[in-house]
Amino acid sequence: MGRSPFATGLDKNQANHVQLSPLTFMERAAMVFPRKKAIVHGDRTITWGETYARCRRLASALARRGVQPGDTVAAMLPNVPAMFEAHFGVPMAGAVLNTLNTRLDAESIAFMLKHGEAKVLLTDRDFAPTIRRALELLEGRELLVVDVDDPAAKGDLLGSIEYEQFLRDGDPDFAWQLPADEWDAISLNYTSGTTGNPKGVVYHHRGAYLNAVANVLSWNMPPHSVYLWTLPMFHCNGWCFPWTVAALTGVNVCLRQVEPKAIFDLIRRHGVTHFCGAPVVLGMLINSAHLIPEGLGHPVSAAVAGAAPPAAIIEGMEKLGVSITHVYGLTETYGPAGVCVKREEWNDLPLGERARLNGRQGIPYLLQEAMTVMDPATMEPVPADGVTMGEIMFRGNIVMKGYLKNPTATAEAFAGGWFHTGDLAVLEPDGYVKIKDRSKDIIISGGENISSLEVEDVLYRHPDVLVAAIVAKPDPKWGEVPCAFVELKEGATTKEEDIIAHCRTHLARFKVPPMVVFGPIPKTSTGKIQKYVLRQRMKSTDALT
Amino acid sequence: MGRSPFATGLDKNQANHVQLSPLTFMERAAMVFPRKKAIVHGDRTITWGETYARCRRLASALARRGVQPGDTVAAMLPNVPAMFEAHFGVPMAGAVLNTLNTRLDAESIAFMLKHGEAKVLLTDRDFAPTIRRALELLEGRELLVVDVDDPAAKGDLLGSIEYEQFLRDGDPDFAWQLPADEWDAISLNYTSGTTGNPKGVVYHHRGAYLNAVANVLSWNMPPHSVYLWTLPMFHCNGWCFPWTVAALTGVNVCLRQVEPKAIFDLIRRHGVTHFCGAPVVLGMLINSAHLIPEGLGHPVSAAVAGAAPPAAIIEGMEKLGVSITHVYGLTETYGPAGVCVKREEWNDLPLGERARLNGRQGIPYLLQEAMTVMDPATMEPVPADGVTMGEIMFRGNIVMKGYLKNPTATAEAFAGGWFHTGDLAVLEPDGYVKIKDRSKDIIISGGENISSLEVEDVLYRHPDVLVAAIVAKPDPKWGEVPCAFVELKEGATTKEEDIIAHCRTHLARFKVPPMVVFGPIPKTSTGKIQKYVLRQRMKSTDALT
Repeated sequence: MGRSPFATGLDKNQANHVQLSPLTFMERAAMVFPRKKAIVHGDRTITWGETYARCRRLASALARRGVQPGDTVAAMLPNVPAMFEAHFGVPMAGAVLNTLNTRLDAESIAFMLKHGEAKVLLTDRDFAPTIRRALELLEGRELLVVDVDDPAAKGDLLGSIEYEQFLRDGDPDFAWQLPADEWDAISLNYTSGTTGNPKGVVYHHRGAYLNAVANVLSWNMPPHSVYLWTLPMFHCNGWCFPWTVAALTGVNVCLRQVEPKAIFDLIRRHGVTHFCGAPVVLGMLINSAHLIPEGLGHPVSAAVAGAAPPAAIIEGMEKLGVSITHVYGLTETYGPAGVCVKREEWNDLPLGERARLNGRQGIPYLLQEAMTVMDPATMEPVPADGVTMGEIMFRGNIVMKGYLKNPTATAEAFAGGWFHTGDLAVLEPDGYVKIKDRSKDIIISGGENISSLEVEDVLYRHPDVLVAAIVAKPDPKWGEVPCAFVELKEGATTKEEDIIAHCRTHLARFKVPPMVVFGPIPKTSTGKIQKYVLRQRMKSTDALT
Repeated sequence: MGRSPFATGLDKNQANHVQLSPLTFMERAAMVFPRKKAIVHGDRTITWGETYARCRRLASALARRGVQPGDTVAAMLPNVPAMFEAHFGVPMAGAVLNTLNTRLDAESIAFMLKHGEAKVLLTDRDFAPTIRRALELLEGRELLVVDVDDPAAKGDLLGSIEYEQFLRDGDPDFAWQLPADEWDAISLNYTSGTTGNPKGVVYHHRGAYLNAVANVLSWNMPPHSVYLWTLPMFHCNGWCFPWTVAALTGVNVCLRQVEPKAIFDLIRRHGVTHFCGAPVVLGMLINSAHLIPEGLGHPVSAAVAGAAPPAAIIEGMEKLGVSITHVYGLTETYGPAGVCVKREEWNDLPLGERARLNGRQGIPYLLQEAMTVMDPATMEPVPADGVTMGEIMFRGNIVMKGYLKNPTATAEAFAGGWFHTGDLAVLEPDGYVKIKDRSKDIIISGGENISSLEVEDVLYRHPDVLVAAIVAKPDPKWGEVPCAFVELKEGATTKEEDIIAHCRTHLARFKVPPMVVFGPIPKTSTGKIQKYVLRQRMKSTDALT
């Protein structure tokens, strides 16, 4: 470009270049719609004007307590107003928000507080037992604990100051700054890591901004959408939806606990238009449909991720008037960064086929550069033949900065200039990605690969099955065989032989699980089935079978 | 951040940082919806897969002819497929697209080709007389001229190769690259400048990407929107809509000339959902509503800018089933970068009041950092009192890089870290910007300021007025008085005294124009009234009055 007339005299300045940050969405919402509803929590309502002032107070109070740019502020909170405010107030102080998974044990929490070097912790009374123990494990490490005293919570106050008092100490006109660089960290999210220590995934302002907008685009969300917080905000920053709702000047409808009656009531009462969740959350709603014989009263959209929604879930939700969008992503991609865009030509297909097509991981988000399937050895894309397996890889601005203080894991994750998801998949002829399995979930039986997902899909088609999971069971003859874990619907009396017969009619013989274990299936707080627990359980019950 | 744990080990790499560029939208559209319609031009249809291949051919053909990154490629084209393709093919070669205003004279075109240092010119037969003369004025300067031989055009072929042949020379699999830096120039747009030489406004990839997305957000455009090209693509790159339509995998419906019957036919035939234009375009449609007694057949959205749409236009368009969004911007802000967001509470107001509220310049686009009104002397924002005048200023990522080879004008435009629009306005109590006038359009009569806009608004309320303009007329007693220029609707016989009487009933006495000149009012190719022509005309007719 040296000899180009465009090479000189056209530099960046304060007027034409501003760091991308989702914090600007809050400022704009408060400026343009100060009296519009921002947050509903029980009978409490907070406007955008008030929310902005509260976020600035939070930033100011943190700064007054010595929090500096690049410091970490942790939050052990359910989906309450303080949690939403932390998504803006903490980065307005230049600090990094570390949301903690509220279902974790004290040891894990203590590990994260230490590893993330948190200077402040916002916590809720409900988690007092865990946090008390975690604080003991910190062995006197300096940490300012702020209690969010939500009237709906029970438990001890552990901190040195209550959140509302803390806010009162802050300045509602605090002159916060955008980050010096849009590449600066905005949040820290620990992966749930089933083995070893959790990894700290670091997000930047640029990615948070772009994914907040990409959520709007991928879902065609209108301004002032009403968003119900079924998805925990601690999970990938609620898939960036706190920032999305601010961009839309929408309404945050808070929810402390995922409970069907409360969800139905809030949807009807506040005119909820959108919510997100795992298939198990949707399954729970379908099984409680009898609570609302009169229906929801208006159309609702739900985004679902974590596992492909089976046909029964799609059909059940459609009956409830809820339209499902299937999204795909990982903590490392700010939550969803791929979406199974529905195509006109699917409309006339039978439900089962629609469910199959819609159950795929799909295509990259509009603002994500690429999502594809590659051979990790050669880093060559697989052919779009629906058969050749490879690993799903991402590239783009909606990919983490890296793992905190873990250069080895960071380098591995980014080997070859792509983010490696660890999910095995094929590319179908229409360019859509379809997961075949997590590499560790593939069952190799007599030298043949069995996809646990395929067998699970069949189990879900049985009318009495509520939740199903397949894990590999060591077998002296075949190497491995699939073992089925099934949680039946209330009152169902289906027997093992019924389930096996059902599988025989839908699967090749070698894929049919020779055994079925009935009982509740353990899930993570975000609704993912904990297969490693099932594997443990299988080992310990092995003697019985 | 030095002591922060986030300060190290979290660098940019190929997996997590990609330059923002609207070129990625084309790649994605072709990958995901290769067989979907991208362009309709007469009876011709081009898919996204074909369009991408054609854009890559164009980039490849340009590179083979020696076009290098940072070179300029000019286009003198109506809204035909080649013009859309140039918005991708030219920057895919790393070059900068300079779209030329097709209504300009040969001298202006020659100036732009010289000043912009164009290496290639794409041109249409219809403009052969102007281009022939412009090429003569270049005096043998090296320039590759490529003729776009559109069957709908008449006129000579002037170049050394025809466009389709040129594409055939290119590689449909050309390995184009994203810009090395998202700050690199993507296009060059000359302002129409009423005095002196036009200024070359330079856009960057980052801004083009963000404004393409901001168009979707500000208008809540759904995927696959069908966009009619009433707005010339040469004007601010069609307000960035070529890139918006690619982002949406929408349909571009081409239009060579703004003509009501053709517009109605295309809207009905192709199910057009969105189009943009100046109020005069909408006025033209309203006056031709008799052509479609059966209506448009489906809801259509129109974005209007260039002047506030008068109540009659809003009402007329509503009757046609077209909903109007009023946007505001300048060439320097990539076209619209502000929008008059409609508010629920306006719905029940009388039409006149709705038109007044909706006629304001509004608030910044979601992805534009700020648009406000400031005192240019102190750079302090004016109070939001609806009275205190100041200048509209922009700041954000949707602001030009600067003026090409014009550091003085660039520095002036960006003085104080804001882009100065030159538009005088107030900030109303709801935070919306309302233009009072261009500084040069304010009339000072007996020491009192008269807003020409206010008087024009009153003129437009007269049922026989089609177009109205007020300019200052020197007056020995008052300094200046407003002079009205009026273009009447067909068949209307309203007299000067009727117009003056109408003004008296709606305006303070000192604001009433003492004289009215009837006749056609000159407009720019983008529908803006050319007040400087009226001022000239007034001077030359001064002896008569």
